[in-house]
Formats: sequence, C-alpha cells, structure tokens
Amino acid sequence: MFKIDPIGFVESSFKESAPPEEMRKHQSTIVIKPELADGLYKIERNQYLQIIFYFDQSEGYNLKGPRYHGKERGVFASRSPRRPNPIGVTTVELIKVEGNKLTVDGLDALDGTPVIDIKPYADVMDKPAVD
Amino acid sequence: MFKIDPIGFVESSFKESAPPEEMRKHQSTIVIKPELADGLYKIERNQYLQIIFYFDQSEGYNLKGPRYHGKERGVFASRSPRRPNPIGVTTVELIKVEGNKLTVDGLDALDGTPVIDIKPYADVMDKPAVD
Repeated sequence: MFKIDPIGFVESSFKESAPPEEMRKHQSTIVIKPELADGLYKIERNQYLQIIFYFDQSEGYNLKGPRYHGKERGVFASRSPRRPNPIGVTTVELIKVEGNKLTVDGLDALDGTPVIDIKPYADVMDKPAVD
Repeated sequence: MFKIDPIGFVESSFKESAPPEEMRKHQSTIVIKPELADGLYKIERNQYLQIIFYFDQSEGYNLKGPRYHGKERGVFASRSPRRPNPIGVTTVELIKVEGNKLTVDGLDALDGTPVIDIKPYADVMDKPAVD
C-alpha cells in the first residue's frame, strides 16, 4: 500500500463529467502547490507534458463490463475512470507557465481534480514503436 | 492523501538499475493479482499498453537538480524516478497474454516493481497533437 499526496489541482470550466473528446478541446490550469513550484524549473522547454491525475470523483469499479462504445472489456483494456486505482494519464500541450500555474490544452480532468505527477512527454518512453 | 494498492508485480531479468534505453530492449512479465485477472478481458486486442508503476526502490527527491544528461531541470521537467510521487509511466508492446500474466516488450521497471494500473494506449489521449 502506497500513499499519494497531490502535487496540485486542476482549474477547469468543466464542473461535471463530459466526454473526454469534448473536454480535450479546452484549456485548463494546473496550480502546483507553492512549496513544489521549484519542480517546474525549465518545464517551459517542453511542448508536451504527461499529466497524471487522480479521479477523485470516481467511485468503485467493475473488473469487466460494457465500455464507452458498448463493448464488453476488462477494466485494464479500458480507459474508464472507474478503476482499482483511479489514476488518469493524459498528454497535453503546454501553453504557458506563470509561477506555479501551468496553462495546458487538452486535459480531460474536472475542476478540482488532484494532480499527482507531471512528466515531460518523451518519445522514447511514450510513443508506441513503429515497425 | 490517497492510498494505492498494487494490481500486480513485474518479473524482469533486471534486478538493479540500468539505463532505461537498455531496459526497454528486453521483454518482461507482469503478473496481475489473480483476483483482478478478469480486468484483463480482451486486453489482447491492444498492441500497445500504458503501464503505470511505482518506483518502490526510489528514495526521496530533489525539486531541482542535474538530470540524466547533466543539465539542471525541475523534477516535473524530468523523468527521474526520484519524484514527490514516485510513479512511472511507460508505453509497451503487448506480446502475449496467458491467464493473469502479460509478456510485454519495452518496460523499464526492475524485477519486483509494483504495477498500479494498466491502460490501452490510445492516440486520442496519449499522442501529442501534430499540427
């Protein structure tokens, strides 16, 4: 069992669940805790970031069930927010950095969502191999 | 504060830290807890998976410091395993599924690493936008 403490929170115009495709069309702000703001040093050199967040509005999960498009899938074959560990990962575009605030484009997280990590997107780790 | 319980563990020939590029050249096995194995239903339909894991061998972190290639960066502008929440995310190729065991290619996680989530790689969430 591990304990995770948020590094910051999302500010978004989305207060309630909406389709991720729609949410990803909007900009939102990530406010990092002031005491962790030094961790953002030179983050503006990255065009894309991976945001790891916690689906704090999500309750419970089914191991197997119909998914977004109605087909039955296991939870690990799905991006459902209802998961054993309700963690979300989304790649966003970094628009602006001001002190401890990041403006990003493409984050599918509701207003108030706890952010648990931010990483620079890196082809070497994140891109599927292309044969 | 959130509590995270591993969904399974990595079996790898890497018992000690090695450069991620080298680790990613090898196959490893993810063993899912038997009680969660139904969550893998139809996962074989995905060629690529995102593995979210916990750097349990990592101790402490610096908010700012020299990184892999010697340049100074904030921890959120780095993929260092030494992070406020020591979570790793890597996209791997799914080679084989046998019961509760996944053979994957390209996972940079040591033997025994706790796995906390698995998601199908999805361009819509994970691929940087290309203008």
